[in-house]
Amino acid sequence: MDFNTENKLFDWARGFVVDLDKNTGLSPQIETGARYLSQMKGAFHDEEAEKALLAAGDPVIYEFHRNQSRGTKGDLIFGCSIIQPGKVGDEYHMTKGHFHSPADICEVYYCIGGEGYMMLENEAGDWSCLALHDCQVCYVPKGYAHRLICTGDTPFVVFFVNHAECGQNYGAIETKGFHKLLVERDGRPAIIDNPKWAE
Amino acid sequence: MDFNTENKLFDWARGFVVDLDKNTGLSPQIETGARYLSQMKGAFHDEEAEKALLAAGDPVIYEFHRNQSRGTKGDLIFGCSIIQPGKVGDEYHMTKGHFHSPADICEVYYCIGGEGYMMLENEAGDWSCLALHDCQVCYVPKGYAHRLICTGDTPFVVFFVNHAECGQNYGAIETKGFHKLLVERDGRPAIIDNPKWAE
Repeated sequence: MDFNTENKLFDWARGFVVDLDKNTGLSPQIETGARYLSQMKGAFHDEEAEKALLAAGDPVIYEFHRNQSRGTKGDLIFGCSIIQPGKVGDEYHMTKGHFHSPADICEVYYCIGGEGYMMLENEAGDWSCLALHDCQVCYVPKGYAHRLICTGDTPFVVFFVNHAECGQNYGAIETKGFHKLLVERDGRPAIIDNPKWAE
Repeated sequence: MDFNTENKLFDWARGFVVDLDKNTGLSPQIETGARYLSQMKGAFHDEEAEKALLAAGDPVIYEFHRNQSRGTKGDLIFGCSIIQPGKVGDEYHMTKGHFHSPADICEVYYCIGGEGYMMLENEAGDWSCLALHDCQVCYVPKGYAHRLICTGDTPFVVFFVNHAECGQNYGAIETKGFHKLLVERDGRPAIIDNPKWAE
């Protein structure tokens, strides 16, 4: 039972509490968006596998909610990314990924459930791919584009917090993707070069 | 397995992952501080109960870790507050609580485990006390002092994210505490006025 509050949803002036489902990351109080395969044209490297999946019914690759205050200095936003298990060809389901705008803003993620990876790369070409599972925190540094990749059999549910003034910049990711791809090899995640970045 | 990283702990430049224990909020990679009752003199309203507990061995009221990047613009800090179950007299274990410095910075909390309350009050005297349990997010608005209170039988484990440039200001809380106290009445949490604020 709360005390001395009207329990107004998203009362950014007086504070509030919202529920997240531990298994799905969804909330009865929050509208959630879905990203379908058809909205990620060219993101996965196997075009034939993509076509076959689209013909069979256009699966949801991931869902997300982003709860934004008034966006003035000192504000934070929070939300969840929920990547559904599955692959397009040999490539695991993943988010589109983005740089921040401005670029010098970091981000903090807490994994609520499932397992996967955080793919990171910066403009200079430095990259890494960090394994992440439930009850782990991932710090995304300034200047790095980042993408979540689900490698488990259950939804990969990740809670994030960021500066409210932070925007997203897709940059070259929109057209070419990240330099590295995470695919399944012998039943395990493996890194390959993204052919779109080959000269 | 990570890819293309040396797994350096707290690599704020390239990113990193740390583990949190779901039940304790502690991490094998993070040093954690403890706040003993003897370090919270006068925070609880029942001085006799406080004396008796101190004589019996000075219990840990809460633990915390706070992981801070270089603190420049665009950085975030994260950490956990872990409030141990228990009472001092009829008053539930709680954190000291603080305002932010500067005051116009909000904060986001995600409850990992246990149950309790977020007590909020601003300089103008507006207050509320929000129930919070595992898998819920609490948004702490700008300008409000905030304190976590454990009302369950297990540790109240709360993960927080905030702007790295945010400091803590104890203000009048240091000497008088919050205007309202959360105590047990008939086995349930109830609000009473803090006698120190009475005229």
